[in-house]
Amino acid sequence: MAAYAIGLDFGTNSCRSLLIDLESGRELGSAVFPYPSGEMGILTDSVDPHVARQNPRDYIEGCEVIVRAALEQARERVPDFDPRQVISIGVDTTGSTVIPVDRCGEPLAFDEKFRSNLNAHVWLWKDHTAYVEAERISKVAREIRPEYLAKCGGTYSSEWWWSKIWHLKNIDLEVFEAAHTFVEHCDWLCAVLCGISEPREIKRSICAAGHKAMYHEDWGGLPDKEFLSKLDPALASLRDRLYSKAYASDVAAGSLSAEWSDRLGLHQDVVVAVGAFDCHMGAVGAGVKEGTLVKVLGTSTCDITVADPNVVDVPGLCGQVDSSVIPGLVGIEAGQSAVGDLFLWLVKHVVPDSYGGSVQAKFEAMGERIEKMRPGECGLLALDWNNGNRTVLTDVRLSGILLGQTLHTEAHEIYRAYIEATAFGAAKIIERMEAYGVQVDEVVTTGGLSLKNPTLMQIYADVLGKPMKVSFSEQTCALGAAIFGAVASGFATLERLQSRLVRYHSREYVPSDSNHVIYQRLYRLYSQLHDGFGTTDWRGNMGNVMKDLMDIREDVTA
Amino acid sequence: MAAYAIGLDFGTNSCRSLLIDLESGRELGSAVFPYPSGEMGILTDSVDPHVARQNPRDYIEGCEVIVRAALEQARERVPDFDPRQVISIGVDTTGSTVIPVDRCGEPLAFDEKFRSNLNAHVWLWKDHTAYVEAERISKVAREIRPEYLAKCGGTYSSEWWWSKIWHLKNIDLEVFEAAHTFVEHCDWLCAVLCGISEPREIKRSICAAGHKAMYHEDWGGLPDKEFLSKLDPALASLRDRLYSKAYASDVAAGSLSAEWSDRLGLHQDVVVAVGAFDCHMGAVGAGVKEGTLVKVLGTSTCDITVADPNVVDVPGLCGQVDSSVIPGLVGIEAGQSAVGDLFLWLVKHVVPDSYGGSVQAKFEAMGERIEKMRPGECGLLALDWNNGNRTVLTDVRLSGILLGQTLHTEAHEIYRAYIEATAFGAAKIIERMEAYGVQVDEVVTTGGLSLKNPTLMQIYADVLGKPMKVSFSEQTCALGAAIFGAVASGFATLERLQSRLVRYHSREYVPSDSNHVIYQRLYRLYSQLHDGFGTTDWRGNMGNVMKDLMDIREDVTA
Repeated sequence: MAAYAIGLDFGTNSCRSLLIDLESGRELGSAVFPYPSGEMGILTDSVDPHVARQNPRDYIEGCEVIVRAALEQARERVPDFDPRQVISIGVDTTGSTVIPVDRCGEPLAFDEKFRSNLNAHVWLWKDHTAYVEAERISKVAREIRPEYLAKCGGTYSSEWWWSKIWHLKNIDLEVFEAAHTFVEHCDWLCAVLCGISEPREIKRSICAAGHKAMYHEDWGGLPDKEFLSKLDPALASLRDRLYSKAYASDVAAGSLSAEWSDRLGLHQDVVVAVGAFDCHMGAVGAGVKEGTLVKVLGTSTCDITVADPNVVDVPGLCGQVDSSVIPGLVGIEAGQSAVGDLFLWLVKHVVPDSYGGSVQAKFEAMGERIEKMRPGECGLLALDWNNGNRTVLTDVRLSGILLGQTLHTEAHEIYRAYIEATAFGAAKIIERMEAYGVQVDEVVTTGGLSLKNPTLMQIYADVLGKPMKVSFSEQTCALGAAIFGAVASGFATLERLQSRLVRYHSREYVPSDSNHVIYQRLYRLYSQLHDGFGTTDWRGNMGNVMKDLMDIREDVTA
Repeated sequence: MAAYAIGLDFGTNSCRSLLIDLESGRELGSAVFPYPSGEMGILTDSVDPHVARQNPRDYIEGCEVIVRAALEQARERVPDFDPRQVISIGVDTTGSTVIPVDRCGEPLAFDEKFRSNLNAHVWLWKDHTAYVEAERISKVAREIRPEYLAKCGGTYSSEWWWSKIWHLKNIDLEVFEAAHTFVEHCDWLCAVLCGISEPREIKRSICAAGHKAMYHEDWGGLPDKEFLSKLDPALASLRDRLYSKAYASDVAAGSLSAEWSDRLGLHQDVVVAVGAFDCHMGAVGAGVKEGTLVKVLGTSTCDITVADPNVVDVPGLCGQVDSSVIPGLVGIEAGQSAVGDLFLWLVKHVVPDSYGGSVQAKFEAMGERIEKMRPGECGLLALDWNNGNRTVLTDVRLSGILLGQTLHTEAHEIYRAYIEATAFGAAKIIERMEAYGVQVDEVVTTGGLSLKNPTLMQIYADVLGKPMKVSFSEQTCALGAAIFGAVASGFATLERLQSRLVRYHSREYVPSDSNHVIYQRLYRLYSQLHDGFGTTDWRGNMGNVMKDLMDIREDVTA
């Protein structure tokens, strides 16, 4: 008998579904729903660019549309398709994306009173209004609870749970007091599907709790009241109305409620897995395992791997949380602040139209020019910090460097230098992981650049000295979510489902030894700039940098 | 009775004349003659980009054309103009521009045998074929004659006299042996006009001898034979066929020969002054005096000032030579390797067409965008080393840096950062001069950028904290040459003629105190990069640079 699973992926601007056949791995249906509210789904404030909120109704509406559309496609593709053979749903969302809710788990945004109050809506991950609170949280934790910071790379972010909740309290006490509690988007959506209205009964994601709310079993779950009181007594009293335990996504959050069984046209026995964040489930959909690093190559990157539970805390990473990716292993997250965004900035602001009349044409023409270039040939070296540095320096107050220009330097050479800079940034992350015992044998990439930019992929392989594979599914996150739903339903183990369902593009990027040798020389110079400009403890002289670049250029062009 | 003087300026691609009324300062005639040979007057070698030679016939032909044309214009403008009232000719040329000649002072290029041999032609200043010889000369001088290098900034250049002559010997012994001696372009042209055919009788320019041939009275003129023998015995024996004394341009090289009196239509009594280099005479035409630095702002810059004869050797400058600019004072020369060239590179290779469809349109649009910007507002900092650094680092193996880019940085901001970088480079030169007792109270500029780019001029004034004036004459070099001719003829003193003939544009650029304060903060960061990347003895950390730039930006935009 056939068995199907649905994965739901709630992104920043839209949500999308994936319906898979759990035996064959065939993708039978997939649909996208762009959020109708705000600008591309984001509610903004014209006077404060840090504000980024969402309307929870978009999630509800979208959920129904994308599931029904996927089922419709399956019916068209498989004549004997029976929606009753859908056994599970898995959900991933962005995060930390925080929803203030009332005693019945209803978002305050649904209350007529708060309908037009942005603070009562969903606080999207990229909302940066809480930067003052984030700094204060980092400071207090550094003083009295350094162990909290050790799990999240040493700095607490304005994008995260406590910063947002505290900031809400500081700017809009009425909304804060009207909120009985707060729920992450991934937890709230699963609760909705299962008809859970008592907030204490919502099964919270260990991925969200561990990466964003400083939850860890070592200290009994959420941060203790003494610490929270030091921030604000209101946060300490809120602690009682939050949660004491969080779950990995191999656990069921519940099964479909009568209402949602009806709305989606699915059986009430469908198991809904505990939710998690998009990149984490995406890593599973891309085949993450010990020794495999998954890089989601987009405007920025999210880098995910897993390690043995005994791994030490690795300084400078974004977070490491037990079972946040694969149950039983430590999920490790890192990231680069600008990759695709860096190239887009370059082509929009620093590339003449002799390369083409559009962004696309410029990328293509530059791509052709750099394809045959050898490492070091352009004589340039860049730091990829135009948007700060997330890993390993965790410092937003950094900026870019381009070095080595002559009067003959051309834009495509600068483009290549920036690709190389992001590859060196990737190498820096792996270097840090390996220095603390987290093994990386291969890299799997997902995201647009993986498919669109083979030159970039080969440069990454040559810089990293590791093979690079490209995930086959275009819906890696939804695939991971679907896998977790099936695991939570008891259909099969995670390992078995990954080996059955995860596939790669046939083109694998194998590092060239001779290029890797040259890139090691360039990487030493990158590291010199990285440490010299990015840390306060480096001491030395930079007089070698320009001359070494010229030597390398002369060596490779000789 | 009226008195007129003619100045002749032999540049890289053309020569030009200026005929002035010595009483009123009125410019009565001026003509240009583009050299007909080669590419824009330069004989090149398709297999070696370092080769740059010229045809001496172009100088002869051009000289006649531009003098006659200037006289013709004067006749049209002044009804009673009488060419017999022209009392003098002054000549400036590029240099070190070296001509191999025979026993009669005839260029070997005029010999049928060597007609198509580039090595027998004029070795133009920008010929860089002799870089190996230049390094060897620097090395030997450093070991046994450090005093030679102290007068030319510590490094002997491939563009200079001995490097070129030695390289000729190494690559074409036949031409070297056919050459009885060698003459600088500025000396040879004066000898031609005066009909001097015996090379020993040619009066050599102290400007050329001192700046390019390591001539100094302290060690008895040219480098001694022991030193030259260490390079090559052939150079030591050549020394006897060169010269033992050099002269400033207030001395007459002779008077017009019968032949040239006839060719030019001038009286045989016309005095021809000893020649000198273009920028040095240009500085005089722009009013150089103690405390006044003249900057020729072109593709690169030439910076000239004068100091008391007791001034110490200033390390890192291009040269300091007794009487090379103003007789009795020490002429001091410095330079920036890329200014106009840097902006042209930028606009050609790093500026999208949203600013305009042509180089000119892009410059104009960017100029409008940067005009109102405040110092530090763009958050960027650049090093102006795309073509190496001539002063004070004297190092061609340096390259550019651009630092501080975000994902919002636009091309016109980069343009402003590069203008500021060249201003900081100018400040570094003045700082070095002042540190060794060479006073700079004001800066006078000549060259296209002075007139075309008022924003650049104001930025320079604000960075330097000194008033900037713009020389009025568009033929500053020829004006300086005309002044020297008149001085050599005994018509008046140099000082008197400068005060009568040198004029400035009415718009003077006065530094803004508040901008200067901000630029001092930025200059400290520029100096940090300058010393960190440009020297080997700096030791420190660069972790402050990006953060300080952000602080400055926040301060000025607050």
